[in-house]
Amino acid sequence: MTSIKDAPATDSLADRYRRIRQTTEALCAPLSPEDCLAQSMTEASPVKWHLAHTTWFFETFVLEAHQEGFRPFGEQYRVLFNSYYNGIGEQHPRPQRGLLTRPALEEVYAYRAHVDAAIGALLDSPKREAIAWLVELGLNHEQQHQELILMDLKHLFSCNPMNPVYWNPPSHAGHEAPAITWHHFDEGIRQLGHPGGSFHYDNEGPQHRVFLEPFRIASRPVTCGEFLDFIADGGYRRPELWLEAGWARLRQEGWEAPQYWRRDGDGSWTVFTLDGRRPVDPNEPVCHVSYFEADAFARWAGARLPTEAEWEVAARERPGPAGTFLEDNLLHPASSPGEGRAPVQMLGDVWEWTGSAYLPYPGYRPPEGAVGEYNGKFMVDQMVLRGGCCATPRSHIRETYRNFFPTDARWPFTGFRLARSTS
Amino acid sequence: MTSIKDAPATDSLADRYRRIRQTTEALCAPLSPEDCLAQSMTEASPVKWHLAHTTWFFETFVLEAHQEGFRPFGEQYRVLFNSYYNGIGEQHPRPQRGLLTRPALEEVYAYRAHVDAAIGALLDSPKREAIAWLVELGLNHEQQHQELILMDLKHLFSCNPMNPVYWNPPSHAGHEAPAITWHHFDEGIRQLGHPGGSFHYDNEGPQHRVFLEPFRIASRPVTCGEFLDFIADGGYRRPELWLEAGWARLRQEGWEAPQYWRRDGDGSWTVFTLDGRRPVDPNEPVCHVSYFEADAFARWAGARLPTEAEWEVAARERPGPAGTFLEDNLLHPASSPGEGRAPVQMLGDVWEWTGSAYLPYPGYRPPEGAVGEYNGKFMVDQMVLRGGCCATPRSHIRETYRNFFPTDARWPFTGFRLARSTS
Amino acid sequence: MTSIKDAPATDSLADRYRRIRQTTEALCAPLSPEDCLAQSMTEASPVKWHLAHTTWFFETFVLEAHQEGFRPFGEQYRVLFNSYYNGIGEQHPRPQRGLLTRPALEEVYAYRAHVDAAIGALLDSPKREAIAWLVELGLNHEQQHQELILMDLKHLFSCNPMNPVYWNPPSHAGHEAPAITWHHFDEGIRQLGHPGGSFHYDNEGPQHRVFLEPFRIASRPVTCGEFLDFIADGGYRRPELWLEAGWARLRQEGWEAPQYWRRDGDGSWTVFTLDGRRPVDPNEPVCHVSYFEADAFARWAGARLPTEAEWEVAARERPGPAGTFLEDNLLHPASSPGEGRAPVQMLGDVWEWTGSAYLPYPGYRPPEGAVGEYNGKFMVDQMVLRGGCCATPRSHIRETYRNFFPTDARWPFTGFRLARSTS
Amino acid sequence: MTSIKDAPATDSLADRYRRIRQTTEALCAPLSPEDCLAQSMTEASPVKWHLAHTTWFFETFVLEAHQEGFRPFGEQYRVLFNSYYNGIGEQHPRPQRGLLTRPALEEVYAYRAHVDAAIGALLDSPKREAIAWLVELGLNHEQQHQELILMDLKHLFSCNPMNPVYWNPPSHAGHEAPAITWHHFDEGIRQLGHPGGSFHYDNEGPQHRVFLEPFRIASRPVTCGEFLDFIADGGYRRPELWLEAGWARLRQEGWEAPQYWRRDGDGSWTVFTLDGRRPVDPNEPVCHVSYFEADAFARWAGARLPTEAEWEVAARERPGPAGTFLEDNLLHPASSPGEGRAPVQMLGDVWEWTGSAYLPYPGYRPPEGAVGEYNGKFMVDQMVLRGGCCATPRSHIRETYRNFFPTDARWPFTGFRLARSTS
Repeated sequence: MTSIKDAPATDSLADRYRRIRQTTEALCAPLSPEDCLAQSMTEASPVKWHLAHTTWFFETFVLEAHQEGFRPFGEQYRVLFNSYYNGIGEQHPRPQRGLLTRPALEEVYAYRAHVDAAIGALLDSPKREAIAWLVELGLNHEQQHQELILMDLKHLFSCNPMNPVYWNPPSHAGHEAPAITWHHFDEGIRQLGHPGGSFHYDNEGPQHRVFLEPFRIASRPVTCGEFLDFIADGGYRRPELWLEAGWARLRQEGWEAPQYWRRDGDGSWTVFTLDGRRPVDPNEPVCHVSYFEADAFARWAGARLPTEAEWEVAARERPGPAGTFLEDNLLHPASSPGEGRAPVQMLGDVWEWTGSAYLPYPGYRPPEGAVGEYNGKFMVDQMVLRGGCCATPRSHIRETYRNFFPTDARWPFTGFRLARSTS
Repeated sequence: MTSIKDAPATDSLADRYRRIRQTTEALCAPLSPEDCLAQSMTEASPVKWHLAHTTWFFETFVLEAHQEGFRPFGEQYRVLFNSYYNGIGEQHPRPQRGLLTRPALEEVYAYRAHVDAAIGALLDSPKREAIAWLVELGLNHEQQHQELILMDLKHLFSCNPMNPVYWNPPSHAGHEAPAITWHHFDEGIRQLGHPGGSFHYDNEGPQHRVFLEPFRIASRPVTCGEFLDFIADGGYRRPELWLEAGWARLRQEGWEAPQYWRRDGDGSWTVFTLDGRRPVDPNEPVCHVSYFEADAFARWAGARLPTEAEWEVAARERPGPAGTFLEDNLLHPASSPGEGRAPVQMLGDVWEWTGSAYLPYPGYRPPEGAVGEYNGKFMVDQMVLRGGCCATPRSHIRETYRNFFPTDARWPFTGFRLARSTS
Repeated sequence: MTSIKDAPATDSLADRYRRIRQTTEALCAPLSPEDCLAQSMTEASPVKWHLAHTTWFFETFVLEAHQEGFRPFGEQYRVLFNSYYNGIGEQHPRPQRGLLTRPALEEVYAYRAHVDAAIGALLDSPKREAIAWLVELGLNHEQQHQELILMDLKHLFSCNPMNPVYWNPPSHAGHEAPAITWHHFDEGIRQLGHPGGSFHYDNEGPQHRVFLEPFRIASRPVTCGEFLDFIADGGYRRPELWLEAGWARLRQEGWEAPQYWRRDGDGSWTVFTLDGRRPVDPNEPVCHVSYFEADAFARWAGARLPTEAEWEVAARERPGPAGTFLEDNLLHPASSPGEGRAPVQMLGDVWEWTGSAYLPYPGYRPPEGAVGEYNGKFMVDQMVLRGGCCATPRSHIRETYRNFFPTDARWPFTGFRLARSTS
Repeated sequence: MTSIKDAPATDSLADRYRRIRQTTEALCAPLSPEDCLAQSMTEASPVKWHLAHTTWFFETFVLEAHQEGFRPFGEQYRVLFNSYYNGIGEQHPRPQRGLLTRPALEEVYAYRAHVDAAIGALLDSPKREAIAWLVELGLNHEQQHQELILMDLKHLFSCNPMNPVYWNPPSHAGHEAPAITWHHFDEGIRQLGHPGGSFHYDNEGPQHRVFLEPFRIASRPVTCGEFLDFIADGGYRRPELWLEAGWARLRQEGWEAPQYWRRDGDGSWTVFTLDGRRPVDPNEPVCHVSYFEADAFARWAGARLPTEAEWEVAARERPGPAGTFLEDNLLHPASSPGEGRAPVQMLGDVWEWTGSAYLPYPGYRPPEGAVGEYNGKFMVDQMVLRGGCCATPRSHIRETYRNFFPTDARWPFTGFRLARSTS
């Protein structure tokens, strides 16, 4: 893949549009049309579908509403590439996205070029102001799908016994993970949520007050080495460590380790990554664990997961060095050299499960219309994750960002950090 | 059924033990051995199993630990009647509880008598202090199963096209439901959770502080009449009113109204109750709705569900008249005459869905040992309900009580009350 | 249970009606109302349902059509106890038969008495001739359900870890199974099917000609001892012995032995029977095997299953001593002392899987009307079994009788006998 | 697609090898790599997988056994492209064939070229004799997969709302279907099965005798026009016409017409074909019906399906003009002009469901070794179809050929012909 680079801060919206759209395509450059078609499970989508859907987003929410004489690029695309917007209309069944051999990948690229030209023209016209927020939303949406492309592709490749290699990352030095230290935060009323003034999702607001009892948070995410200790101590065989629903899932699925881990005949562990299968590195943050595994580990360790409020307060009040992002071109969480007066890797490397359910903030309202189906209608039966990961664009993440997944999701780049109540 | 009566406040623990255990049996008096055997779905249990399991609780947690020369009543009861206590050992598979034609119902009654005698002896001995908390826990557990017996039985009977009648309630006057008024609460830090000093579940503590933005809460639960308006306005046909997961469930299950409701050929609605099928009364609180339906109604009404903190603050700071409990012998929510300076029916009539996920309070710790598997291990993927219902014993409920069910549960006596953020 | 006795040959139809109906009730005498309610799987029915359905058959097909001023006993019985007769109308869902706690068992007995009185009166009236065939059909139907009661009950009791005992059989001497000998039959055209002149099911006719290549058939069914050899030789671990669909089923269900067998810690095998759990007797015919297991054993043994035509020819042309029937009160297949000039146990002990699919004979036509839904509409995707078993009434079985089950059925009393082509 | 042409009768085995292998590739020529990857259901396979598996067959059964110094082309191909040969070893899970984006389509073509060269060399060597039968088997296997490619592709394309067009067939004149006439056959002993002397599958033998009662068989397959009459007469709404299992399936799947048919708003019917969607032609043989639909139609028409013996006797003793084959390049059944002294279209156009279960002929034995897993292990729970279809190579089919599918299969080119017993 062409290496992904950081964006200059001076970019105009049109510049950013071009750059972000090109990044998506750069991510797909190493892939064949076949790689881009397959769908390995209902929760994941084909790469081609991601390429088309992100384009559909701009076409449907920007061009259809704002382009004079708008005509759709493909007659049935409105249905084929609609993910879940009931306000727009019917949707092609999600489990059948991988059956869309037509339109061909190259037609989807033509679709992208067509929409890019039209958006470019609008951004160069007096309508620029009118569409700026929608374009910004579309670009953030595109960045989310950049990460989805990588995590869905990783799952797909993991189903192939040939262990396909997506790309070879640049060489980078490993670090020995330092011992965890604990950062204390006093009780008090804090502001939670995005203060406004720049782009953010509706679910990050409105800003509001919460009261936090005193707590401590770990200096870094839990590592593979620590997780190996949990496994060795019978972590996957002791029901008392697990939530009931987690234990049921473990037994049903036969979980014995994080997703993509495999124990070989000699007892050593390997992990499947986007650069192929290799030994588990004990210094890296553990990744691809469900909420249940994170929660069980925390119980085993005599700790707990932080709430999203605790996490946000820690990330905002005592910001430490961030970790690995998409632009680092590793596509895998890395060990951090950082240590010191603040927690490290709050942003980057792994999405961190919190102990908070994904629910609306007080006073939350989604935007009017179909575009309002973005975040609000998923606010149930999921947990909040914070901080972005090694597949997240650096410009996409912030301390108030709320990601969410069901408790049994393992194919995102999910890890966790410990917290403790202070009494 | 023998009418259930209120307990005198002067009862000793031994008195209360006898009375509560007898109440369970009184509830089962109108039932045949066949009625007590059947299990209508995995989530529900046979009445006989409830009778045995509550007894198992006392035998396992009190007698086995504290009775000298303890010998189990039935060799395999430890497994057969263990619900989910992994710390105790294996469990008979939940979906197969209805296949246990042996031990016979009368043997289970003998089991109850045997354990009651032994507990009575211990409560009359110097060990009384040592077992007091466990007996208290067991009695609260028994009361929960009194309600479960009624809701599981209702589900079972609803599967029988003969519309069996469990019993005939005393006659009672209906009331016209007054219009909803809104009770305002100011912002501020509040104490949440049980203050201690009397029995409460582990999940009601520890007491802790929360900050609440200002809010308003409705004077009474939503009624069937209001819910009929929602239905008539296309409530079950408009995806924009629903959470995504709720809409998916609605389509999968074909929901068109609350559970137990049926629209007859002439367009009128009837409801199945424990006294048979009868017309829907528009003045009663609506009951047997899922979280999804409560949430969709609230969105339709331009409101939302209260958080559990808001609910508890309202119930504690401005207590109004309570509603119907088990001891009222109606076994169905009733319209309330009450109105005035405080919300009515916060306690009683219907469990009220809140907008809060069931998660541990800050600093929560379950008790040590298997008895600690009571509440904590279910703290995921469920929502909190508050206030008790028409099948809850009056002495069992309090303002800090946290009930919990998955978002799609409809067979409990579940209703809801609206709230609004005040800006 | 009251021992079941053989019927005198001099019985009138009215005598036979009384006797057969009483036999059904005698079989249920040792059972509690609870035992009679539970349904252990969709394929099985509760005993109470069998008691009611057989009565429904007489009420619907005889009384409703022939009794003057007929009025149904129970308003909803027509639906509740209709098994699968679309010509009669709707049916209560099969998987929910175990939820019908009402009508109570005693009401079902009252239903039986009511219908018995009415049928008795008709049989004592000039209408006797008009109803004779339907009553005969109903009695044969009742006998089938006598066997179903026993096999469904056995399955239910096997789900109870308490290993309930249905009854204690009379003591009987065991025999050592003699070695298999092979009985040769020449090629030629044979008549197949019932010759008429006495009661038989529609599926036993019309009589027609088939050509048989020469074959040999085994002198007796395969025994548990032989089946233990198959297991010991890796029979359940060698895919080359199995039909593809059988191997898939084995892996999915984890089959390692016939149903109801269990290998204990010391490697010895026990079997669950209607008189409880006891060691496997190597001399008994193996029982409760699927078609797949019978077929795999035959392949392992270098033989095959007989076709139904071969089986019928052997049973008719060279009849040997029959085996165990319901009236022997063993309710379990027994070893046979018999040996000699003809195959033994062709009738009795175990239903024998044949290698023939259950399809219509040439020229087959079901009777007109709903009563024609008895056999014909099941003629697909099942295999033919022949000969009756230890739970079949002796008067119910004959050489032309065609039973049928899906290839994976194991809860009937199913065994098998080997055959070979002679070249 | 390049038109497929008939093969000269003078072809050598090496010629035939080249020609048949090339035909497979010609069939795939119009397809993109994406088209070749997708798998629309577990029962179907991706085109790429078919291309690889047929090659695997030659590599595994011919090269591995007979080529000196054999080395596998791809390390994991032995597992990836093994369909179900347990004698060879493990298999990639069938439902995940569509996830194998690697090896790429072009690598599979290289695999084909590699194996073709090696087989060509062996056929040009003294080992020719030793491998002749295996090569012949492999070519017949390849021809079967040519048809599978087309039927699996058709299913895949039918899942795409864009109605992809695979190719445009040559123009051809339509014919009005003549009325059905009935051809009578006398009773008697007949030889069934392949007489030997040329290639045939193991399941076509051994030749053996059967006795047939007299019967009549229809002059041609049932047409779409006749099937429309069945639909119009409530065929899909009348349970009395259906086998119980068929009626259950109809209700579960919502069947209202043959697969690929759709009723448009104006009540007219269209059908999806490999050349796109077009109106149903009443003169064509009806196609893509399950056994259940064929059986129900026959019952409605007062007829039945022929047994496979009847079908074979008719096709052999009174051969009429054949119908459409792969080499006609229509890929859809066509109306036939033929009529006269013999049944038409016994071969070609549509596979004809028979009333016979797929079971071994008397004395049947599969070949030794893994190659024997070809036909025998599927001899259960399927029905026999005869005659080939418009996607079958002409040189592949013969009167003794036994195809088989489960009773609910609709995606093969399945139709049927009526028969009647003569009394």
